[in-house]
Amino acid sequence: MICSYDGYDYMGFQIQKDLPTIERKLVEAFRKLVGVPVKIYPAGRTDRYVHALGQVFHVDLDVSISEAGLKKGLNSFLPESIYIRSVEKVPMTFHARFSAVAKEYRYYINTGEYQPMLSRYMPTIVHLDAEALEEALKLLEGTHDFKGFASASIDARKSTVKTIYHTQLIRREDLIEIRFVGDGFLKYQIRRMVGLLLEIALHKESKEKIIEVFEKKDPRISHRIADGCGLVLYRVEYEENR
Amino acid sequence: MICSYDGYDYMGFQIQKDLPTIERKLVEAFRKLVGVPVKIYPAGRTDRYVHALGQVFHVDLDVSISEAGLKKGLNSFLPESIYIRSVEKVPMTFHARFSAVAKEYRYYINTGEYQPMLSRYMPTIVHLDAEALEEALKLLEGTHDFKGFASASIDARKSTVKTIYHTQLIRREDLIEIRFVGDGFLKYQIRRMVGLLLEIALHKESKEKIIEVFEKKDPRISHRIADGCGLVLYRVEYEENR
Repeated sequence: MICSYDGYDYMGFQIQKDLPTIERKLVEAFRKLVGVPVKIYPAGRTDRYVHALGQVFHVDLDVSISEAGLKKGLNSFLPESIYIRSVEKVPMTFHARFSAVAKEYRYYINTGEYQPMLSRYMPTIVHLDAEALEEALKLLEGTHDFKGFASASIDARKSTVKTIYHTQLIRREDLIEIRFVGDGFLKYQIRRMVGLLLEIALHKESKEKIIEVFEKKDPRISHRIADGCGLVLYRVEYEENR
Repeated sequence: MICSYDGYDYMGFQIQKDLPTIERKLVEAFRKLVGVPVKIYPAGRTDRYVHALGQVFHVDLDVSISEAGLKKGLNSFLPESIYIRSVEKVPMTFHARFSAVAKEYRYYINTGEYQPMLSRYMPTIVHLDAEALEEALKLLEGTHDFKGFASASIDARKSTVKTIYHTQLIRREDLIEIRFVGDGFLKYQIRRMVGLLLEIALHKESKEKIIEVFEKKDPRISHRIADGCGLVLYRVEYEENR
């Protein structure tokens, strides 16, 4: 299933006790529709305030309901802030997270006047040097150990080597959009990469700091973590013949 | 003062008992900043869910605080959803409502897939005939008695003759933006004009219905009232030498 959501009113994707989360709303909608508890396997767990246009999740369902019926039924039980875009049957071997071959995230920044109608979807940061940002952005492309950009709390047994296939900076009037396409991203990785890019674009750091973070592999080297609300999980890619 | 706001979480501009309204938040911010109750005179009272980029209001203030200090101070006491864009001293003869010579409102419609991140700012309506909408829109231009488009509850002693100087329909991918510039608008007028335009764009009414509403001058001739959340008070114009 592909879904979109406005993450601003949620404490992230993953269920946490009684807090409002995307997963909780999905589980509740499934329970209302099919009457049984359903476990949600997402492609990735987005943080607090982070949005999605193309989050993917799979479920193991043993009920006789059509794809169209699932889509319509779930959407009727979901709040306005969460929407099931499509439902598709997949082989038992498919896993929303482990079968993914690439993910695209987009980060938005308003560089103009503060605007209440944008404030849920992007931070406002003025006086950015967009050329410096773009130059530094290109240093993040390729295969690197991104440990220095990850949360300090991630599982030490897991590899922190990831590949960023493509980055792009797009300017539209006062808006800056930064696109990241990669094989996967560590917890906080994009927000901490964007945080450092913003420091560079504000001339508070030089672009060489990126190389330093790659080399030292130490998440405690302090730098800004960008606001969650500017981040959107745009799409998840799978092999054609999964 | 020019202010912008995200109206989705408010019951409109005007104070109503204990309900959340824009005016209430402004009055509270003034009380915190200058310590005295301040009356707000807006250019127009926007309805529930309606947004503003360029709402104007004036206040009579007898305190020694600079324009910059007022802007900064008020913004520090206002929620993220309301922002004071500018503050300017005006002659005692200035009145935010009575000195206004024109207002521009914009109405937004998503004609594509439902999208949670757009849902606070525009309704989603598919299968619209944008050409039919634009043709009908042009019939609204000029000086007319708009009584048939107004709320049935408006003061019968006030003139319902208004002039729409300019309308424009802009399409950007799946979005439709409709602009209205006029000397003033009656309560519900834009939302009821857009409501009828949508019926025409859905081929449920013909554009001749507009002429009928002008001629019958009866607000009870039933037609759709468009959602408040798609409407934005974009700017208010005053004479240069007010």
